[in-house]
Amino acid sequence: MRITVLAGGVGGARFVRGVREECARRWPATGSGPTDGGSGGDTHTAGIASTGIGSTGTNGPATSADITVVVNTGDDLWLAGVRLMPDFDSLLYSLAGVNDTERGWGRAGESERVSAELREWGVGWPWFTLGDLDLGTHLARTSWLRDGLRPSDVAERLQRRWPLGVRLIPATDTEVDTWVQVDPADPAVDGRAELHFQEWWTRFRAGITARAFSQRNLADARPAPGVAEAIADADVVLFAPSNPVVSIGTILGVPGIREALATTRAPIVGVSPIIGGSVVRGMADACLHTIGVETDAAAVGLHYGSRRPAQGAAGGGLLDGWLVDETDAAALPSLEEAGLHATSVPLWMRDLDTSAALAGAAIDLAARIRDER
Amino acid sequence: MRITVLAGGVGGARFVRGVREECARRWPATGSGPTDGGSGGDTHTAGIASTGIGSTGTNGPATSADITVVVNTGDDLWLAGVRLMPDFDSLLYSLAGVNDTERGWGRAGESERVSAELREWGVGWPWFTLGDLDLGTHLARTSWLRDGLRPSDVAERLQRRWPLGVRLIPATDTEVDTWVQVDPADPAVDGRAELHFQEWWTRFRAGITARAFSQRNLADARPAPGVAEAIADADVVLFAPSNPVVSIGTILGVPGIREALATTRAPIVGVSPIIGGSVVRGMADACLHTIGVETDAAAVGLHYGSRRPAQGAAGGGLLDGWLVDETDAAALPSLEEAGLHATSVPLWMRDLDTSAALAGAAIDLAARIRDER
Repeated sequence: MRITVLAGGVGGARFVRGVREECARRWPATGSGPTDGGSGGDTHTAGIASTGIGSTGTNGPATSADITVVVNTGDDLWLAGVRLMPDFDSLLYSLAGVNDTERGWGRAGESERVSAELREWGVGWPWFTLGDLDLGTHLARTSWLRDGLRPSDVAERLQRRWPLGVRLIPATDTEVDTWVQVDPADPAVDGRAELHFQEWWTRFRAGITARAFSQRNLADARPAPGVAEAIADADVVLFAPSNPVVSIGTILGVPGIREALATTRAPIVGVSPIIGGSVVRGMADACLHTIGVETDAAAVGLHYGSRRPAQGAAGGGLLDGWLVDETDAAALPSLEEAGLHATSVPLWMRDLDTSAALAGAAIDLAARIRDER
Repeated sequence: MRITVLAGGVGGARFVRGVREECARRWPATGSGPTDGGSGGDTHTAGIASTGIGSTGTNGPATSADITVVVNTGDDLWLAGVRLMPDFDSLLYSLAGVNDTERGWGRAGESERVSAELREWGVGWPWFTLGDLDLGTHLARTSWLRDGLRPSDVAERLQRRWPLGVRLIPATDTEVDTWVQVDPADPAVDGRAELHFQEWWTRFRAGITARAFSQRNLADARPAPGVAEAIADADVVLFAPSNPVVSIGTILGVPGIREALATTRAPIVGVSPIIGGSVVRGMADACLHTIGVETDAAAVGLHYGSRRPAQGAAGGGLLDGWLVDETDAAALPSLEEAGLHATSVPLWMRDLDTSAALAGAAIDLAARIRDER
């Protein structure tokens, strides 16, 4: 079973943990023991997930399924001399089990000695903390980039430290940092017409009206090595319940990725990031508002659109199936009408079990779509 | 009084502290109170040392003398994605009073959380520790370099945090990292014919025979802004008792610096880094051996040579005067014979007073040379 997931950071990480867990239950690693979250064998090998043989790493359940995650890079930035890839690192730390579950981001047991110095030097953003352990990752990445490695090479190296049981690939090796167009007359922005996404998101908590989002270099970007193949060769493609505009949206904006999605034989199933008209986590509503999409599970599904629209509906969409929460079950007929196979299931990922159940529902919907073809 | 000092790192820092102290005693800052090492006023201004008005910073005694230090950059390197300038930082930390006096290098109160992570990532050199506080400096520098600042601009910014009472300028803005040619058959070097100076120095403690030293890009380097002027306009130029080969030697190798020294009207006085045939600190003997100079106070003085050689002696040297330790007083006649004004004084810098006394002796020798012209 080959599953490819398009995902952003924190919410994406929660979903991917569920996918990994569910796969371990359905397709346990060959030769490994019970799959209930332990280390099933003693053949830990760095990077084994990318071999497609399955993983017996210590950081997650062992599965024979080949899980690839195409990671949003639109949140990435240069800060204080180092390259940050926040969504990638969120996935890395979370899947490795070294994330700070209290705070919801960064490394567990983090400290901020270097950040205190950077504030003294007036370098970086005082409202954007770089933890010491986290800085180790950024320095390693920056060092390897200086050595000439591509971000996808760096991603592969970072995953050697902790066998994740999944393979993370940045969507593109091109730097496609997102910038947010704002009103320069807004007193908070000091006359600037554009803010880096991280400033808009982290400093202003998306509280300043975004006129538009634009990703640098996006027209010239190409999918990172392995991305198009992972979509083309998948048995199932899933859209994590990540921000449809700046996370999934950035991935989809990389030339070549829409084409790969359009032509893959795998069913493509998305999971709504909206429950009952509210964002599950993050501030996707502010982003949706900017692109004129309602904060509504059905509206986001229709924004992605159907690959095989029903008669009379507009074509050129991305999805075959769409999962909404049970509270949004009333929207199912309109989604089906637009050509989407839609199902309502419990969408809240409260813990590993509910995340796995959600992943299972997405995989089941994909199987149903394949069977109905 | 304008004093310009050519200096390397730790030994240079000790000497420059002495120069600053001695200047405060001889030429106290106008309008400031007692000069015995306290903060003489309340008009702390970042960068005031570069105005030539003198400094009333909290980090050193106040003097009206204008002290400029031309800092060796041959020890600099890229490591773990950041730019290190070890000699500059040694001077900065020491003059700011934030250096670790126990260990002899780095910041006081240092920790190594990031370094532990870098070891996990296999990035950097396990035998070259980057302290957390120190990394703050490296990240600030690297960030500013990424923004397009020159190393000399970065140096100026770093000095804003702590008014030093002296102005530090890197000898050149060009990256002139020193590499050491070694025997590739030496089992310790894994077949390499060349090591970065820091590997040879810090990892191997200069214990592998150096066939030669070469500085990258040195032929294309130019003095950093202010360096040639500081030499040309000085009343006194001093060579700190730093490594004559890889510290002072690198500074002298920057095209334009020898010319500035040759033409300045200021007397040029050097201080021997060798006492009684031994290196005061560091491993300069290994470096001297490589360039065929004896580890001997007189030999190093003659290696620098006299600007105004006595009849029959070789010309084209760099110095007017040379200070040796009292134990090396027997060498004075041969130095005088070679055209150098030589004096023997206590050379050990055990504390601030002995450092100041040594600086005073160098300034006195310069005055004597000027008077005798």
